[in-house]
Amino acid sequence: MSYLTHLECALTGETFPSEQLWNLAPSGKPLLARYDLKKVAAVWNRQDLAERPHTLWRYREVLPMRDFDNALSLGEGFTPLLPARRLGKALGFETLFIKDEGVNPTTSFKARGMAVAVSRARELGATALSAPSAGNAAGAMSAYAAIAGLPAFVFMPRDVPIAFIGECRALGASVTLVDGLITDCGRLAAEGVRTHNRFDLSTLKEPYRLEGKKTMGYELAEQMDWTLPDVIIYPTGGGTGLIGMWKAFAEMVELGWVSGGKLPRMVCVQAEGCAPMVRAFEKGDRFAEPWQNGKTAADGLRVPAAVGDFLILRALRESNGTAVAVSDGAMISAAGEIGRSEGIFPSPEGGATLAAFHDLRRSGWIKDGERVVLFNTGSGHKYAHLWAEDSRA
Amino acid sequence: MSYLTHLECALTGETFPSEQLWNLAPSGKPLLARYDLKKVAAVWNRQDLAERPHTLWRYREVLPMRDFDNALSLGEGFTPLLPARRLGKALGFETLFIKDEGVNPTTSFKARGMAVAVSRARELGATALSAPSAGNAAGAMSAYAAIAGLPAFVFMPRDVPIAFIGECRALGASVTLVDGLITDCGRLAAEGVRTHNRFDLSTLKEPYRLEGKKTMGYELAEQMDWTLPDVIIYPTGGGTGLIGMWKAFAEMVELGWVSGGKLPRMVCVQAEGCAPMVRAFEKGDRFAEPWQNGKTAADGLRVPAAVGDFLILRALRESNGTAVAVSDGAMISAAGEIGRSEGIFPSPEGGATLAAFHDLRRSGWIKDGERVVLFNTGSGHKYAHLWAEDSRA
Repeated sequence: MSYLTHLECALTGETFPSEQLWNLAPSGKPLLARYDLKKVAAVWNRQDLAERPHTLWRYREVLPMRDFDNALSLGEGFTPLLPARRLGKALGFETLFIKDEGVNPTTSFKARGMAVAVSRARELGATALSAPSAGNAAGAMSAYAAIAGLPAFVFMPRDVPIAFIGECRALGASVTLVDGLITDCGRLAAEGVRTHNRFDLSTLKEPYRLEGKKTMGYELAEQMDWTLPDVIIYPTGGGTGLIGMWKAFAEMVELGWVSGGKLPRMVCVQAEGCAPMVRAFEKGDRFAEPWQNGKTAADGLRVPAAVGDFLILRALRESNGTAVAVSDGAMISAAGEIGRSEGIFPSPEGGATLAAFHDLRRSGWIKDGERVVLFNTGSGHKYAHLWAEDSRA
Repeated sequence: MSYLTHLECALTGETFPSEQLWNLAPSGKPLLARYDLKKVAAVWNRQDLAERPHTLWRYREVLPMRDFDNALSLGEGFTPLLPARRLGKALGFETLFIKDEGVNPTTSFKARGMAVAVSRARELGATALSAPSAGNAAGAMSAYAAIAGLPAFVFMPRDVPIAFIGECRALGASVTLVDGLITDCGRLAAEGVRTHNRFDLSTLKEPYRLEGKKTMGYELAEQMDWTLPDVIIYPTGGGTGLIGMWKAFAEMVELGWVSGGKLPRMVCVQAEGCAPMVRAFEKGDRFAEPWQNGKTAADGLRVPAAVGDFLILRALRESNGTAVAVSDGAMISAAGEIGRSEGIFPSPEGGATLAAFHDLRRSGWIKDGERVVLFNTGSGHKYAHLWAEDSRA
């Protein structure tokens, strides 16, 4: 049922068999899932989608499961693409859209990656799951581990908002709170992986969270009637979503589903207090230096070093995109703009995309009439404390 | 496009024109929307649904909008009906389902009622909206008011979890925190309605939140391939969802879409600390006495007096259903059971339905092989503080 053929090292192109558990390639870089797209193109038509479930599993031919009875589902994906009419009008820019990932299970886009990665890990024999996380990824892993019937081990900085901690505990995960940064959590998690034979689901350290995230790209195309927007603005921590969408576009071009002539310009948004990708993009570097003492209220953007740095930078350059850093103040203020005009309560990360839009309009980088999609990667509910104490909104 | 013909007093049967704003009927009781179902049956087939949007607006023929361009949407409804496989197995009861309303916009079923009520209020000329609320209804009203471009005024007890307050503020609502109970909030809200010409969107005090909620009944039928379950267990505060589903089943029987021979037995679950409907049901009363000093951690169940009490009690009796009170401890513990076995983080209200299921299995009221649907009316994210401090899950 799946057309997965093998895995490929994203750096060296070396290939590896797909029917066993993998973390990073021997090069220390991510593995990418490859499919027999010629065969897929021969057997699968876009029209078939009408009858499929309203989840990301509707794209099963380009997802890795050998047996789709093993696919775990809580209703992830196929989230609304909303025309931002009132906001667009206020800004004099009426071709603005918001992809609202906040209505996913566990209230964020992380559900996509974990739905696919946990399903696949179980199919390949994993017996326990582990991840360091500063937020939404932990909740999503806990949820899918729960329906998978696998124990989940989460390592979080002690200072994350309690909503993230409470969610994991309610979902039955074992939560270790760490006095330190996400990198310290990573160290502790790695120790448990080694000594207890847990499977490591860290961002891009196994091949299939990326496959779940890429479905955002398929959905955008389907929801825009098999055209693609001119610009996609995406809040980038680990960057799996951005890399995933860029992979999806390439796959769809090969399938003949979208035209390769004019793919979207990809914009990576980061927090001023933690912007390794922006710095590397501006310097023209192929890899990004780790950011020292990263600080931002957007937990999803507090990622000092991304394993997929070169893949993010490559997607930005291949797409004629760009990278923008915004302040925490600007992202919270923009989140309020989205909230009061479009009825979506965005996470700070979601707010960051509108803050970047403002910057790119001011600089003329985004032109009148271009179709722009902002990604609200998660709902603001886990950050409600930022709004409860005063009335700045 | 709509087949709405008139409104009808739920107590007296008196009829009223539908093309103007209404709150309660002159009797002080709710108004129900009535449709020309013969005409609907003639023009609308269940098969047409395949091509409709994956929101509650797919049932537009039995929704009240005159012009569907006025329908506000954030992706509400058409939530997953999940087979509770692991939980069912653990309980030796494999025909258990969970309808997960937590993946709605604003993370609860309240989005359904407010999507329809706010759309319709705006269509009929409302210029400002008001509601007292102990929780999710306020967030949902704020969200739809925002995309409607209407100011929203929310009155909340000061002691509600901050997530509810933060959400409303982020969505641009004016939030008044009241030192007192929901009844005190109601008094203050009513004052603003009178003096500032705001439209009152309190539960069942206008006819259309019920119409939004009834779509849960249509969805259940559609998702179960036009059969209905044997038992529906529903956490009941104001009871709009329970009344709405019962109305939907009657409409679908008239449309010839489901058989009227065997409708689901409806179960109302309340908190032991605030159980006016359970008491009235057990006493055989037609109306419920207000509950004094209602107390429960489940904000949605802290409703001492429901305007639609007689409609709830009527649905329970007509359906051969029942009413069950559960303790806060039992509902939180059952929420954890759902979380760690099914990957859904339920609200305490959602947990209450499983606690009631346990009671009804013990007593033999639910028989082997019956298909039972639990309604998780909202996600647990706004209650994450209940889980963050210890590790009882």
